[in-house]
Amino acid sequence: MAELREIRDFLDRELRIGDIPDYSGAVNGLQLENGGAVRKVMAAVDASLPVVLEAVESGADLLLVHHGLFWQGAQPIVGGHWRKLKAAIEGGLAVYSAHLPLDVHPQWGNNCLLAEAIGFKPDGTFLEWKGLPVGLTGGMEIRRDELAERLERAVGGAVHVCPGGPERVLKVGLCTGGAGSQVAEAAMAGVDAFITGEGPHWSYPLAEEMGINVFYAGHYATETFGVRKLAEVLGAGFGIEAGFIDHPTGL
Amino acid sequence: MAELREIRDFLDRELRIGDIPDYSGAVNGLQLENGGAVRKVMAAVDASLPVVLEAVESGADLLLVHHGLFWQGAQPIVGGHWRKLKAAIEGGLAVYSAHLPLDVHPQWGNNCLLAEAIGFKPDGTFLEWKGLPVGLTGGMEIRRDELAERLERAVGGAVHVCPGGPERVLKVGLCTGGAGSQVAEAAMAGVDAFITGEGPHWSYPLAEEMGINVFYAGHYATETFGVRKLAEVLGAGFGIEAGFIDHPTGL
Amino acid sequence: MAELREIRDFLDRELRIGDIPDYSGAVNGLQLENGGAVRKVMAAVDASLPVVLEAVESGADLLLVHHGLFWQGAQPIVGGHWRKLKAAIEGGLAVYSAHLPLDVHPQWGNNCLLAEAIGFKPDGTFLEWKGLPVGLTGGMEIRRDELAERLERAVGGAVHVCPGGPERVLKVGLCTGGAGSQVAEAAMAGVDAFITGEGPHWSYPLAEEMGINVFYAGHYATETFGVRKLAEVLGAGFGIEAGFIDHPTGL
Amino acid sequence: MAELREIRDFLDRELRIGDIPDYSGAVNGLQLENGGAVRKVMAAVDASLPVVLEAVESGADLLLVHHGLFWQGAQPIVGGHWRKLKAAIEGGLAVYSAHLPLDVHPQWGNNCLLAEAIGFKPDGTFLEWKGLPVGLTGGMEIRRDELAERLERAVGGAVHVCPGGPERVLKVGLCTGGAGSQVAEAAMAGVDAFITGEGPHWSYPLAEEMGINVFYAGHYATETFGVRKLAEVLGAGFGIEAGFIDHPTGL
Amino acid sequence: MAELREIRDFLDRELRIGDIPDYSGAVNGLQLENGGAVRKVMAAVDASLPVVLEAVESGADLLLVHHGLFWQGAQPIVGGHWRKLKAAIEGGLAVYSAHLPLDVHPQWGNNCLLAEAIGFKPDGTFLEWKGLPVGLTGGMEIRRDELAERLERAVGGAVHVCPGGPERVLKVGLCTGGAGSQVAEAAMAGVDAFITGEGPHWSYPLAEEMGINVFYAGHYATETFGVRKLAEVLGAGFGIEAGFIDHPTGL
Amino acid sequence: MAELREIRDFLDRELRIGDIPDYSGAVNGLQLENGGAVRKVMAAVDASLPVVLEAVESGADLLLVHHGLFWQGAQPIVGGHWRKLKAAIEGGLAVYSAHLPLDVHPQWGNNCLLAEAIGFKPDGTFLEWKGLPVGLTGGMEIRRDELAERLERAVGGAVHVCPGGPERVLKVGLCTGGAGSQVAEAAMAGVDAFITGEGPHWSYPLAEEMGINVFYAGHYATETFGVRKLAEVLGAGFGIEAGFIDHPTGL
Repeated sequence: MAELREIRDFLDRELRIGDIPDYSGAVNGLQLENGGAVRKVMAAVDASLPVVLEAVESGADLLLVHHGLFWQGAQPIVGGHWRKLKAAIEGGLAVYSAHLPLDVHPQWGNNCLLAEAIGFKPDGTFLEWKGLPVGLTGGMEIRRDELAERLERAVGGAVHVCPGGPERVLKVGLCTGGAGSQVAEAAMAGVDAFITGEGPHWSYPLAEEMGINVFYAGHYATETFGVRKLAEVLGAGFGIEAGFIDHPTGL
Repeated sequence: MAELREIRDFLDRELRIGDIPDYSGAVNGLQLENGGAVRKVMAAVDASLPVVLEAVESGADLLLVHHGLFWQGAQPIVGGHWRKLKAAIEGGLAVYSAHLPLDVHPQWGNNCLLAEAIGFKPDGTFLEWKGLPVGLTGGMEIRRDELAERLERAVGGAVHVCPGGPERVLKVGLCTGGAGSQVAEAAMAGVDAFITGEGPHWSYPLAEEMGINVFYAGHYATETFGVRKLAEVLGAGFGIEAGFIDHPTGL
Repeated sequence: MAELREIRDFLDRELRIGDIPDYSGAVNGLQLENGGAVRKVMAAVDASLPVVLEAVESGADLLLVHHGLFWQGAQPIVGGHWRKLKAAIEGGLAVYSAHLPLDVHPQWGNNCLLAEAIGFKPDGTFLEWKGLPVGLTGGMEIRRDELAERLERAVGGAVHVCPGGPERVLKVGLCTGGAGSQVAEAAMAGVDAFITGEGPHWSYPLAEEMGINVFYAGHYATETFGVRKLAEVLGAGFGIEAGFIDHPTGL
Repeated sequence: MAELREIRDFLDRELRIGDIPDYSGAVNGLQLENGGAVRKVMAAVDASLPVVLEAVESGADLLLVHHGLFWQGAQPIVGGHWRKLKAAIEGGLAVYSAHLPLDVHPQWGNNCLLAEAIGFKPDGTFLEWKGLPVGLTGGMEIRRDELAERLERAVGGAVHVCPGGPERVLKVGLCTGGAGSQVAEAAMAGVDAFITGEGPHWSYPLAEEMGINVFYAGHYATETFGVRKLAEVLGAGFGIEAGFIDHPTGL
Repeated sequence: MAELREIRDFLDRELRIGDIPDYSGAVNGLQLENGGAVRKVMAAVDASLPVVLEAVESGADLLLVHHGLFWQGAQPIVGGHWRKLKAAIEGGLAVYSAHLPLDVHPQWGNNCLLAEAIGFKPDGTFLEWKGLPVGLTGGMEIRRDELAERLERAVGGAVHVCPGGPERVLKVGLCTGGAGSQVAEAAMAGVDAFITGEGPHWSYPLAEEMGINVFYAGHYATETFGVRKLAEVLGAGFGIEAGFIDHPTGL
Repeated sequence: MAELREIRDFLDRELRIGDIPDYSGAVNGLQLENGGAVRKVMAAVDASLPVVLEAVESGADLLLVHHGLFWQGAQPIVGGHWRKLKAAIEGGLAVYSAHLPLDVHPQWGNNCLLAEAIGFKPDGTFLEWKGLPVGLTGGMEIRRDELAERLERAVGGAVHVCPGGPERVLKVGLCTGGAGSQVAEAAMAGVDAFITGEGPHWSYPLAEEMGINVFYAGHYATETFGVRKLAEVLGAGFGIEAGFIDHPTGL
């Protein structure tokens, strides 16, 4: 058994919660407390209603997520939102969320873990947001098709490709999640294969015009790496049970 | 016993929740639901921690407030905020909040009830906010001292007066709550006695310069009227127990 | 042969280009002129580089699109952007774009044509944007699976479903293109099956929490209807050759 | 007799008028000039109509204030505002104003002088505004009641207390004037007794929820220290007559 | 002798000061009051330092201007600004300013009076600002050179012409003052001769590209008409002495 | 013959295009590409329609300007705008634009070249914009009339003077182009002769009040120096033909 306070302090420090900027809806850190003790931690990509119900059902005291409870801002606690908070509060489930701090973490981040899974060794960064580079870049000579296959193996599913650039890739840029709308910035950075999770329709014709390949590998699918790893780290470090709740959105 | 849904529909309609504009933090309407049944309703000015605890203790199913749960925007559910939501959710307490819709209601509003309490018969409005006039005006010939005394009797406490205008008042403007910073707008409207709850320090020297009397009668003290009345209305209309939790701030 | 000026005047009037609000990047109306004569019109969803090249190759004088040339704002005319403008200008290809005016047109709009293709008879509107309702609603009793199948037949491809609502649908809301992020607004409008083109990852867990089904039928796929129809109308009305360039993005 | 120019240069330099940020309405520095000579300086909290009239009556050539002439922005020079400027200009009264520069001055500031008056020895700062910390913090073990009494002696009047925190105070935060709306920021800084001048009604329930004591000691009352001291400094340094005009607002 | 209050009420009503929108710096209406009596009114384009000094010297009690005292927002009353206010206040000079209300007035406006002076009979309006059309349009068949000559006679000085449009003018648009930056809007309105006071350098090449003639007749020179007329109206209507102070800027 | 790419790289580096901030409409750098080869470069102040036509006519491959193609933001390519782009693209004319980077360049900048032309030796800077000082200052004892004459010789035309300051100038501030609206900032910097290109009407009375002389030497006229010089530099450095297209606006 561990103290929630100790786990929170550990995560806040390791993930540099106080230093890394983020969208206001992210509300990184402890989002919901419980009585104080943690025996079992579950990780998930989203703090969605089905995920919270499953976490409570599983007997977890702490849910670790990439996308937390507050993206909609202040909202009435009614309907599904009420059922979710009620289940968590009555079930003694705390929620800890880490968004950009988990994307960019040098060992446990979504970016570095996906890069590792496809054999990509980045040596630089790109896509700055409020002074924080949220993507990784590096030289990687590989055929476009081969890169798509590696990605499909890594995320365990289909990857949508916009073949706007050369068949022979020389420089890769990678940013998990929903970075597709930054395709122009990626092209300006000299990247010819831009790997991300999702992007809007308009990013596709823009990529064709900028002459860059884009790999849409799934927002959910590219972001399971970080929370899964973090749960393992907590399990081992604090001697508690740890697991992962898989609830894909297909997006 | 009444259905929460019926009470909500009644209040939404009578208070014109969907039509009346408000600050984004107000989140008028049902803010927190419960299982569905309401046997006892309690009213209060603020949905503060002590008030929620007392409401749950009293066995209420519904708390009716003027200032709801969300003025701080989306915030982590930890500490006192967690204790408050936990108490309400586990105690089956729903929360319904009405801010400007309750200030300006023609029968149950804070403005009209305070006006009645001091024998002031308004015949116009002033202080527009997003097209909604949030204050009442009218002719009233009265000595400044006499008006202060009537106000003290009505709110049951001390009233702070800035004697910036004439001793003999001819036109009164009234806006409960925190309208003191609109003293210039009040003076422009021809008012020589401006009654409100609270105002910042700078409203005092400005009132002296504009030549207008200001009566700071307390933000809390001027806003107990509406919720108290509304609880009575619900008690009588739905045949349920109704009461008022008095938790003054002195501000 | 027709005059470009006449076609422009016809489209401006019929599509109410001057009256219907839109995003600043849309720049509805004639976006690029040519010498003045139009013998052949081609329609497409996007004014992308491959589409423009194909239009010029086909001998068209006018390209009619839903997504025009200016979504990136003012930008240097270099690289692919230069090749595109060069090809169009040297090839005498004019470009006319209609975004929201074409989504909402009562006979030729993407919304009404997709509704017709799935046997949905709307009787109301929803999703206001600057006072313009950009979606259609209506009662339609149908099983969720059946609705998905009809959609797949209509758009000729796979449709991704978030089964966040009831299996038996009673009220449908439809908005072609990228309206997925308005899932909460759709739920507030009482819709239990929300049909759109694309939506961000976060719209999926939000739909689960709001208890609403979402059908992501493809941004491109749901927006071929309007331009295709408009080309037919121009062909028939002005006695010119008309066609459609299919260049799907898969998004 | 001193030169106004010399006094202005001295104050601008000592108070770092050019470096310290402030609200646009503050307009720190010389706000109104006179013929050039200064024989007598009077200090006051506000450059209000009664204060200016009294200053002119007293034969002063310079009025030194914390709250200057321009908080309302550009405004017609009519009514009380005209009478004030007319009296000052015809009476040869210059006005010099220092707002935040005087709050935070390390020897003559409102903050440090009030701290000294209650026996509080700060060793840190808090409440940053545009990079400038506008409050002082420090450890101070004291009973809440005892602290309130010391404050009442220091400001010479009643102090309103919100007992939201522990009875035994360990860490004090102090910011004169109207900082009550920063109660959450104070609590985040680990302060359990927050001393300020005034705060809005909503700061009280928020303090109860955050578990922090708040001492509302009066905006006017906490800000007489700085200008009073500054007048003494000028009197001694420039060999001119110096005094203080007390015109409390009770807020 | 007239009462300042009566003149103010007359002007406020006739010029619709309360209804017509304007830039915040305009501060239309009475900007500076005096003791109350008006024996002599002087008009001028700008309430500049030389103009105010001359008005006081001339024994005027009221200065009527198009550009008032507050375009710089709230500013310290030092140097030339102090000398100006001091002269006016000590000289008992009131200042009344009317900006857009005087440009657009149907009998006394700068627009209609300049139109009359060049024999142009407008039948429409253009250039909307916050819902107020600030320019006049109408058909007028005239050679460009002839129009320039008429303008030079009307304003009594040189007129700079950008010959971007046809030599034979068919439709004129007129807006006194500094409307040159609206040259594109003028062209969109079908105007081929755009008459205004001044415009930035970039309006010239833009006019060449849009194919429109622009006549830069001087900001000052096109705006003497309204105030001059208004002084006459006051002189006749209130039986007081009236005059005009000419202080051209050459811009 | 030179490569466009090499010229672009040279200019980007020498003018510090990537580092110097500018207005969004400036779009500094290569604005329109051509096939790749450059045999002849022409310079001009504005990329206006007549200038582009003349550049194409002259057989130039590259047009170097101070004011580029995109000040109006994204706009339909119709009318004069279409003719201009069509002529340039079909004529193989590239366009390179440098705005603030060319104003402030230490050897080739408009500021330093105009200073040199009038015998003014600046030793400081003023008028910061986003941290970039865009004007030059320095001591220069000279009669106002003499300075006006030197300016007229330098720009080859009339200079309009506002004699708001002393006849004997001691400190000069110079900023080419349209800096007239910064007259107050210039006065605050201690300048008594402010040399710029153009300024709005209101800058004149403001200069009178601030007690500063202003020399309006023409926006166009003060900005021919930089592009003219740059063309020479390219001609010599890349061994290509170089010239200047003079198309004054008189503004």
